[in-house]
This record gives sequence, structure tokens and C-alpha cells, in this order.
Amino acid sequence: MNIFALLTSAGINIGICALLLSLYSVLRKQPGNVSVYFGRRLAEQQNRSLDSFSLERFVPSPGWIVKAWKTSDEEILASAGLDAVAFVRMLVFSIRIFSIAAVVCLFGVLPLNYYGQYRHHVKIPSESLDVFTIANVEQGSRWLWVHCLALYIISCSAYVLLYFEYRRIAQMRLIHITQSSPNPSHFTVLVRSIPWPEEGSLSDVVHNFFTKYHASSYLSHQMIYRVGKVQKLMNDAEKVYKKVCLKANMMDQKHCPLKYRSGLCVEAANTSQLSHDEFDLSAKNKDLGLSDSTTKLQECAAAFVFFKTRYAAVIASEVLQSSNPMSWVTDLAPEPHDVHWSNLWIPYRQLWFRRIATRLASIVFMFLFIVPVTFVQGLSQLDQLQQAFPFLKGILKKKFMNQIVTGYLPSVIFVLFLYTVPPTMMLFSTLEGSFSRGGRKRSTCYKVLYFTIWNVFFANVLSGSIISQLNTISSPKEIPTQLAKAVPRQATFFITYVLTSGWASLSSEAIRLFSLIWNFTKKYIFGRKNDPTSVPSFPYHTEVPRVLLFGLLGFTCAILAPLILPFLLVYFLLGYVVYRNQILNVYVSKYETGGRMWPIAHNTTIFSLLLAQIIALGVFGVKKSPVASGFVIPLLIFTLLFSEYCRQRFRPIF
Amino acid sequence: MNIFALLTSAGINIGICALLLSLYSVLRKQPGNVSVYFGRRLAEQQNRSLDSFSLERFVPSPGWIVKAWKTSDEEILASAGLDAVAFVRMLVFSIRIFSIAAVVCLFGVLPLNYYGQYRHHVKIPSESLDVFTIANVEQGSRWLWVHCLALYIISCSAYVLLYFEYRRIAQMRLIHITQSSPNPSHFTVLVRSIPWPEEGSLSDVVHNFFTKYHASSYLSHQMIYRVGKVQKLMNDAEKVYKKVCLKANMMDQKHCPLKYRSGLCVEAANTSQLSHDEFDLSAKNKDLGLSDSTTKLQECAAAFVFFKTRYAAVIASEVLQSSNPMSWVTDLAPEPHDVHWSNLWIPYRQLWFRRIATRLASIVFMFLFIVPVTFVQGLSQLDQLQQAFPFLKGILKKKFMNQIVTGYLPSVIFVLFLYTVPPTMMLFSTLEGSFSRGGRKRSTCYKVLYFTIWNVFFANVLSGSIISQLNTISSPKEIPTQLAKAVPRQATFFITYVLTSGWASLSSEAIRLFSLIWNFTKKYIFGRKNDPTSVPSFPYHTEVPRVLLFGLLGFTCAILAPLILPFLLVYFLLGYVVYRNQILNVYVSKYETGGRMWPIAHNTTIFSLLLAQIIALGVFGVKKSPVASGFVIPLLIFTLLFSEYCRQRFRPIF
Repeated sequence: MNIFALLTSAGINIGICALLLSLYSVLRKQPGNVSVYFGRRLAEQQNRSLDSFSLERFVPSPGWIVKAWKTSDEEILASAGLDAVAFVRMLVFSIRIFSIAAVVCLFGVLPLNYYGQYRHHVKIPSESLDVFTIANVEQGSRWLWVHCLALYIISCSAYVLLYFEYRRIAQMRLIHITQSSPNPSHFTVLVRSIPWPEEGSLSDVVHNFFTKYHASSYLSHQMIYRVGKVQKLMNDAEKVYKKVCLKANMMDQKHCPLKYRSGLCVEAANTSQLSHDEFDLSAKNKDLGLSDSTTKLQECAAAFVFFKTRYAAVIASEVLQSSNPMSWVTDLAPEPHDVHWSNLWIPYRQLWFRRIATRLASIVFMFLFIVPVTFVQGLSQLDQLQQAFPFLKGILKKKFMNQIVTGYLPSVIFVLFLYTVPPTMMLFSTLEGSFSRGGRKRSTCYKVLYFTIWNVFFANVLSGSIISQLNTISSPKEIPTQLAKAVPRQATFFITYVLTSGWASLSSEAIRLFSLIWNFTKKYIFGRKNDPTSVPSFPYHTEVPRVLLFGLLGFTCAILAPLILPFLLVYFLLGYVVYRNQILNVYVSKYETGGRMWPIAHNTTIFSLLLAQIIALGVFGVKKSPVASGFVIPLLIFTLLFSEYCRQRFRPIF
Repeated sequence: MNIFALLTSAGINIGICALLLSLYSVLRKQPGNVSVYFGRRLAEQQNRSLDSFSLERFVPSPGWIVKAWKTSDEEILASAGLDAVAFVRMLVFSIRIFSIAAVVCLFGVLPLNYYGQYRHHVKIPSESLDVFTIANVEQGSRWLWVHCLALYIISCSAYVLLYFEYRRIAQMRLIHITQSSPNPSHFTVLVRSIPWPEEGSLSDVVHNFFTKYHASSYLSHQMIYRVGKVQKLMNDAEKVYKKVCLKANMMDQKHCPLKYRSGLCVEAANTSQLSHDEFDLSAKNKDLGLSDSTTKLQECAAAFVFFKTRYAAVIASEVLQSSNPMSWVTDLAPEPHDVHWSNLWIPYRQLWFRRIATRLASIVFMFLFIVPVTFVQGLSQLDQLQQAFPFLKGILKKKFMNQIVTGYLPSVIFVLFLYTVPPTMMLFSTLEGSFSRGGRKRSTCYKVLYFTIWNVFFANVLSGSIISQLNTISSPKEIPTQLAKAVPRQATFFITYVLTSGWASLSSEAIRLFSLIWNFTKKYIFGRKNDPTSVPSFPYHTEVPRVLLFGLLGFTCAILAPLILPFLLVYFLLGYVVYRNQILNVYVSKYETGGRMWPIAHNTTIFSLLLAQIIALGVFGVKKSPVASGFVIPLLIFTLLFSEYCRQRFRPIF
């Protein structure tokens, strides 16, 4: 692939992005799409009157970009919570570090790579991209210290930025914990694995246990029941209730705050009002006209226990409750909307096994996914494609088609495959048995992250080179050298991946194609009205791994193939605008985990740094520059020490 | 090495053991050696009157064996504490599991190995030991299922025994925690990393902090001072005081309980009596006649904080105290005698770094130790020795010398080298900065364990075979096959290792040669009297790894070279008697960690099982028996699951 092909690919992508984003700026003004693009505001009951027809509605405008850019972190914190801020800070960190990296590498490393060997340079547009990578630097070159210095600058900036970001998020988390408005979950402990009594009910057992051991602070408790169909009926009824409430609201234009009642957890903000909810529950059942026989509830060995003070609840959740650590397991209760109700009935004894099983399953899934990746990899090697499908020879001989196939198609197919991953991982995480939605999302996030890093980075790097088997990972000593040989070779693929998967995913995220189509069909084909209660929450489990993956690509390719950096920087800047816009307008934060996504981002960045340094070690080894290799080793050690220090300093807060 | 050489070696060792143990049974009756063999009783002030001369004193007698055997676990618990019981249970577990293994393998596996190939069997005494190992079974043999079955029986028995032992120790630990007599440490929390105030003293900061956040349960606190020489003077004074007390005691034959006062921690058993100890401290200083200028104490950023209830102390130690997890670090205080005073002044911020540095140092030490091991390994290969030292040729041609060199010498040199390891590791652990002696000993135990397993097992196995470099561990896929090839070949060495290192170390443990000589020189050359306060505590950090190492050898060699099992069984039986005797008579339990050694034993046994199964996998692979290999895999998975279950079930208690 040469520069011209790259520019073609970039051109196509810039065009598509510009088109989609202009389309977005038009579509968002259409009143029919309010539920797609302003779900959040709808849910907040701030109906905008956009029904008047005007020409302005059909002219693309950049106003939303300005607005998204100008909104401060404090405003995002106030409206979307700490999780959203943590996500935005990931983008800010990426922009900062890759700005530094771009300046250093484009002005320091790139010319060295280009003039690395005494060769005849053709015109830049038809120059192969390999000329811009470290592959073009001759062995034993005296200029490799520049690469090493660049690595030092990037790493040190990363340490400083990472430390201050972690400290900032930690401070925000502490403020969130101490100063957020009182929430029933602060006073509640989720108790699982309550031993079954020989006689009497579980509820009595819980009552006796907590009046015995936490007499001074215990207030009351609420058993959890497995209700199955009844629960579903109740949920439906609740939705109907909300809709009625909404209609009434629309009619008298009054502000009627939606009370999301989960039916099983108390919503009262004042602790002195915390009380048994059972009466409420039975009252509701009667309202629904259900006979007693259908409301026969099956007790689970789990309960919510309410304490008089927040401190007591924290203590009860942290101290071992019984001599058997597998019974009377206590955890601070998640927020009412964060509770994953259907997982509460899972016996605690199963959880450790479920955890292992789902992890194994996701590892198997991760490795089996290699098959389509290898296929895609084959596509990008044109001659192999022509051999496989001889009838394509005619088409592929045309230069333009050739460039599309090599520069664009592989990534698109790959991205389509990747769409199946998050739902699968989410399924695994559900089966894992986390009791909170936030925990499930975080677990999915980890799985998707490992998956993405393995399949986008490692599988491509390793199958793109000669050693296409898993054998590589079974000889750890060889890894730096193998990676050093393979990564520069795959840099082209990573650049096009940033262009296609990165940019395109951002613009499709902005335009929300699936929602748009679904909204359209629902409205005009099924004739249904908008349902403001079905506003989605932010898909951290897909977006966090994506942003982190691009960070990984940036760190590993920075000094090897600096050409990737401007494209990455554009991606992060665009992402900054788009994601902030989406957070402000589209998604609703149904629950708050208090920035617990940040350690994932931090650790992944540390991993990326380590990987970049290991690869640099390998590259300097391959280029026969023992001095440069030697200088990388202290950097590796310092990265590990830095990681350990941050773990000690910040991890216990999260 | 053939059976006759083995029997020679065994004969020498049995002779030495018998001699040493008879010598022990005589020496222990000599009144001069009371301080060597009955240190514990001396410390407990139960002076035995052994001064009368009788012939019986010079006749070896097995009375001590009977007594050590008959003492029940409850008696050991009462006199030496839970740690000693946990150690004895390790021996009991080993005896049980290797009795089962011996029955299964000697009657099932050994004949199969012996008749594995159609070969002419010479007379058993001159038969090579290899004939009794799995190396003699021909490839693709149909009888390998017996080996597989034996592995299953051993593994399943191990699971059952391990589970019940862990449960038993956990129960004992819970009883120890709940029902032991009140101890000041139960009400005390060690606070480290107290932030330095801008003005005022650290003591005020501590007082303000705890009256603010733990007002209802905070009682008082005691700052820790770094005193240097003053402390030493005080310690000396204390020793003098004890001796005076002892003398007085001897004179009026009254029972004067020795009060070990640490000078910095309160000894009162009743909580309501807990009070500032500063007055006491200054009073003591005045007694010693030290002027105020020399007693100027340097405050450390650490303090003991006393609470009114035990529960409050536990909570204060478990809950995060400040927004910075690296300041106000709280831990439950160790017992007064368990506190490692000189480590308390280490700034908490250094600890994470010290931990990493010492771990690295011990790993480096572990790998550098390979040099003498390789040398010893060379010694056992006779022809190499003759090449290196041609003048030895004449001596080595004699059959007896030959047998001594091959069967005995390598292990002896090896054992001598090993004696330097525990002190080095103890030094590392001291530098690591643990605040309790128990923690330091546990940390040393881990280090010595890793060291022993690596250097006795892996280094021997790997350097004994062709692949003598560290390269092997860098190709994980090859490990089972390499081990499978190397372990049966090294079985001979392991058997002699059990004979020399195992049996000999037990008898030298019983006779306490170093102490005996030291006692003799002290008494008759320097003319000093016995010092009953300098009774040693049990060296768990050397004995636990040793017992666990023999367990590892047993598990890994059981189905490959079953001949090792009877020797091992003798070792464990002898160990059971000797160690119990030593615990009852010699060592004093100065502090109690409540059986926290057991998880080390449990995890190491799980590791040994896994290793045995991985080696079996490799062996069945080498012997081309895919069915047997296939059957080992579920066993491996089950071992991992069992380990995870035990971690969930018991680990939080420890």
C-alpha cells in the first residue's frame, strides 16, 4: 500500500464522516427524530417545541459541535454523572498524550525513518508506506537514539498525565461518595447466601441474625422473592402507569417527576422513612387484581438489610459476618436501578464456578474468533484473493478497485464481525451472576477489551507474519523479536483500521443509524408512539474498549510508524465532540458506579505502554542497537513500579 | 545406581539416624544439656531435678518416642499453640496420603514397572533403579491405565484429606480467635503513615483523628518512638531484671511469672485498665538514670491505638480511614511479642517498594544458587568427576567409594549449601519491612519454599537432563514433556535426597548439634551460665518448606518411581515423632499467628498435585497413550476447581 492508497482511503472516510455528520446535524433538527437524538431530554421531560417548519431545519450546521465542545466537565458531571466524566477524561488523556507523541514523532522520528536508508526516493504519493516506518532504518544506525528518546518522552508524559488523571478521578469519586444526595442504597446491604433454617422463615433468620449482631444499627430488611411471571406483569403495569403519567403531564404541562419504582426496593431518600416494603408490594398486587394463589412468592436466600447509618452499612458490608465465608455474604447494595434483579436468586455457592466457566467460555470465544480474522487478513493480501477467486482477476486489476480492496474492505468486514462480540460478552457476564448492572457492564467491558486487544492487535500481528499459529505465545522469550518484526509490517493495516473502524464508528455513533431506522419503522409502519422510558444508557462496554484499543495502537505504533498519529489524533478529537454530544443529548445515566471504569482505562494504558516498550526493545534488538535496547529496560522497570505505586495509592478507593 | 547402592546409602543413613537418636536419648538425660533439650520447660520454670547420678542416664531409651507419639493434639494446642498444631497436621496429612499412595503404588504400579518390558532380569540387588521406574514401561503399553488409576486414587484422597484438614484448622483458628484469653493486642490497632502536622505533635494529630472519627470506641493511643541506643540499653536492663527475678525465684522456689514487658506496649489483660504507657516509659527511663537529653525520643509516624471493644478495633483495622489509602493505614496489632519493633519506624510509603525490591533480590538469589547445584549434579555423574579430577581415578575405582560418591556425597554437599539459605531469606524478609515477626517468618517461609522447590526439584530435573539452561521455562508447551523425560531419570537422586537430607536433618534436628556445641563451649570455655530467656522459637521458616518439599517429591514421583514412597513414609513418621518432641520440649511459642501457616501448606500441596498431574500428562504422552493422557486432563481441571473452592471457602478466615 502506498501513500496514494492511504490518501484514497482517508478521502473516502473523510467524505463519509462529513456526510454522516452533516446528515446528523440535519436529522437532529427533525421533530420526528427527537426520541433518537434527544432521548435524554425527553426522559427529563424538557420537551422542545420543534414542530414549526423552517428552512433552517434542512441546512447542516456545526452548532452542536460548538456546544459539545464548550460544555464543561462540571456540567457533564451534574447531568450525566461521574461515569460519563471518567469516559470523557479517557478521551482528554488520549488527546493530550497523542498530541505530545505526534509532535515528537512527526518532527523527530518520521524524517529519520524516511531518510533511514540511502535509497532512491520516488515521488511521495507513490511511496510505499513502509518507507515511513522504522523498517526503513538500516541496521546498527546511529540515529536510533532518537527513537529511544521519543519513547522516553512519550512514556514520561504518559506517567505524569496518568497520575494526575487518576488523582482527579479519585478526588471526584470521593466527592461523589461523600457529597451526593442521600440514596437508600447507601444505607442498604445486600446479604446473600443466608443459610436455610430448619424451621421458620428465612425472614426470621435474617431478623434474628441482625438484631443479634448489629442491634444498634439494624433497621429492617426486605427479603428478595423470585416471582417470574408476576414480576413481568408488574413491570408491564408500571410501564403503563408511566405512560399515563406522561400523558397527564403532556396535557397539563406540569412537571411530574417520574418515580422509577422497582417494586422490591425502597426509594425513600430519608433514612428515617426506611421501612418494610412488603405492604406496598402486596397492595400493588391487589391493585393489579391478582389472586393470592398467583402471588405466591418464592423466597430467595438473599435480602436487602437496611441500617440506620451509612457507616453501619459500610461496616456490615466489609466485615466477615460468619465463620463460613460462603454464608452471610454482605455487599453494599447497588443503587435501585443498578440492581440486576434476575441474578439475585442465583445461589451464592454457584457464583465462583459460574465466574470460572464464563471466563473460560469467553477465552474460547476469543480464540475461535481468529478464523474470520485470518480470512480478513487474507483479503488484504491481494494476490491470495486472486488465487482464491480467479474470476475477480479482471475487476481487481483496475487500480481503483485494487485500492478499495486493500485499503478499505478488510477493515469493514472486520468491523461487522466485531458487532456480534459485545452482545455475546454481555450474555456471558449475565450468566456470570453479577448482582448489579454496573458490575455486569464492567465485567463485559473487561471481556470485550481482552477480546478486542487480542483479535485486533495480536491476531493481526501474529497471523500477518509467518508464524500464524498460537505457538508464538508459548515461547515468551521470542515475543519481543516477533512483535518487533511484525508490528511495523502491520502498521498499514492499523492506519486503515483507525480510518475505517475509528472514524466511521464515530460518525455512525453520532447518527445512530440503527435507532433511526428502528424509530422510523416503528412510527410509520407499526404506527407506535415514542416511548420516552426506553432511553438507552451509555454503552460503556463497547465504547471504553474501543477508545482503549486505539490508545494501544497509538502507543505501540508511535515510534515505529508515526504516520498513524495524525489519524489517531483526529479520531480522538472527533470522539471528544461526538461522545460529549451523545452523553449530553442521547443517553440517560440510569445508575452510577462512581467512575469505577477508570481503573480499567488506567491499567490498559499501562499495559499499552509496557507493550510499546517491549516492542521497542525487540526493534532495537533487531536493528542491532544494544545501547538503545539497554536504555529501554529501565523504562520497563519504571513502568511496572509506577503501576504498582498507582495501585497502592488509588486502587483501594475504587 | 542399582539397588545395592541404594541399600548401602539407606544403611548408612539408618545407621547414622539410629546412632544420633540413641545419642539424643542419652544426651537429653544429662543435666548439663537441659537448656539445649528442655528449653521450653526451663522457660516455664519447671525445673527438673536431674542432678542425681544413675546408670540409667547413659543407656539409650525409647521413652521420649512413646511420649511424643502419645501426646494428643489438644495437649500440643494447649502448650505450644495453634501454629504448632498446624505444623503437626501437615505431617499427619503427609503420613496419611503417602500411606495410601504407598499401598496403591507398591502393589499396583511397581510390579508393572518392573515387568514393563520383556527383558532379562538380573538379580534384584544388582538391578538398576531405573527398572523400577516408569521408564521401564514400553511405549503404548496397555497397562498404563493402572498408573492413571493410581494417580486418580492419590489425587482424590488428597482432595478429601486436604479439605478436612483445612476445615479442621479453620475451626481451630476460629476457636482460637473467639475463645482465647483477652489479650491487649485484640483491642489495639497499629496505625502507620500518620501525616505530619504543620504544627503540634503527631500524638495530638492521632488523638484528634480518632476522637473525631471513632469517638465512641477510641480509648487512648501510644506513639512509637525511634530510640536507637536507648532502646538497646533498656532491653539489656530488662534482661538483667529478668535474670535477677529468676535468681530470686530459684532461691525461694516460688512461682514468679515472668512478665515480658516490651516497654512500648501495654500488657494489661483487662481493657478498662488500658491507659497511656508514656508515664511508665519515662519512669523506667528515670530508673535507668538517663538524663533527659539522651532520652529525647524521635517520633515515628506510627502509633498503637487502643479501643474499648474488640469489635471496634477489628472495624478500625478493616475500614479505609482516609481518602488517601497510603495514609492512616490501619492493621490489627500483632501480639506484643510478635511486634517487630525495629521495622515500625519504616515510612509506609517505602514498603511497597521494599517489597518489590526484596522479592526481586530473592529471585536473583534463587537463580544464582543454581551454580553450586550444577556442580553437585556433576559430582553425581561419576565419569565427569573423573575427567575433572584425574587423580581421583584410583580412589573412585573402588566399589565402595564409588557407591558413597554417587549415592551420598552429592546430597550432603547440597544440604550444606542449603543451610545458608534461610538466614539470607530472613534478612530479605526483615528488609521487606513486615511489622510483625510472624509476618516476617511467613514471608521467609514463602521465599525459602520457592527457593527449595526451584533448586531441589526444578534445577535438578532440568540441569540433570540435556536442556540444562533456563531456556526450558521459556517454552511452556514443552514443559510437560521435558519434565516427563527428566523426572524419572532424576528419581534416584530424589530417593537419596530423602535418605540424606530428610532422615539426617531429622536426627540432627533432634540432637540439635549446633546448640549442643554452643552450650558446651559457653559453659566450659567461657564459663557462662544458662540463660533461660534465650529459648529459641520453632523455626517454621525452615521446617515448613522442608516438609512441603518432601511432599512435592512424593506426589511427583509416586507413580513414576514408587520406590521413593517407603523412604518418604519413614521420613514423615520419624518427623512426626521428632517434631512433636521438639515442640513439646525444646521450642517456646513466643507468639501465635493462629495457624496462618496452613494456607501455605495447602497451596503448596495443590501445586504439587498439579505438577504431578502435568508430569503424568507428559509421561503418558511420551509413552504414546492418548487415552491415559486424556483422562489426566479432567483431573487437572478438577484440581484447579478444588483449589478455587477452598480459596473461596476458607481463605477469608485466615
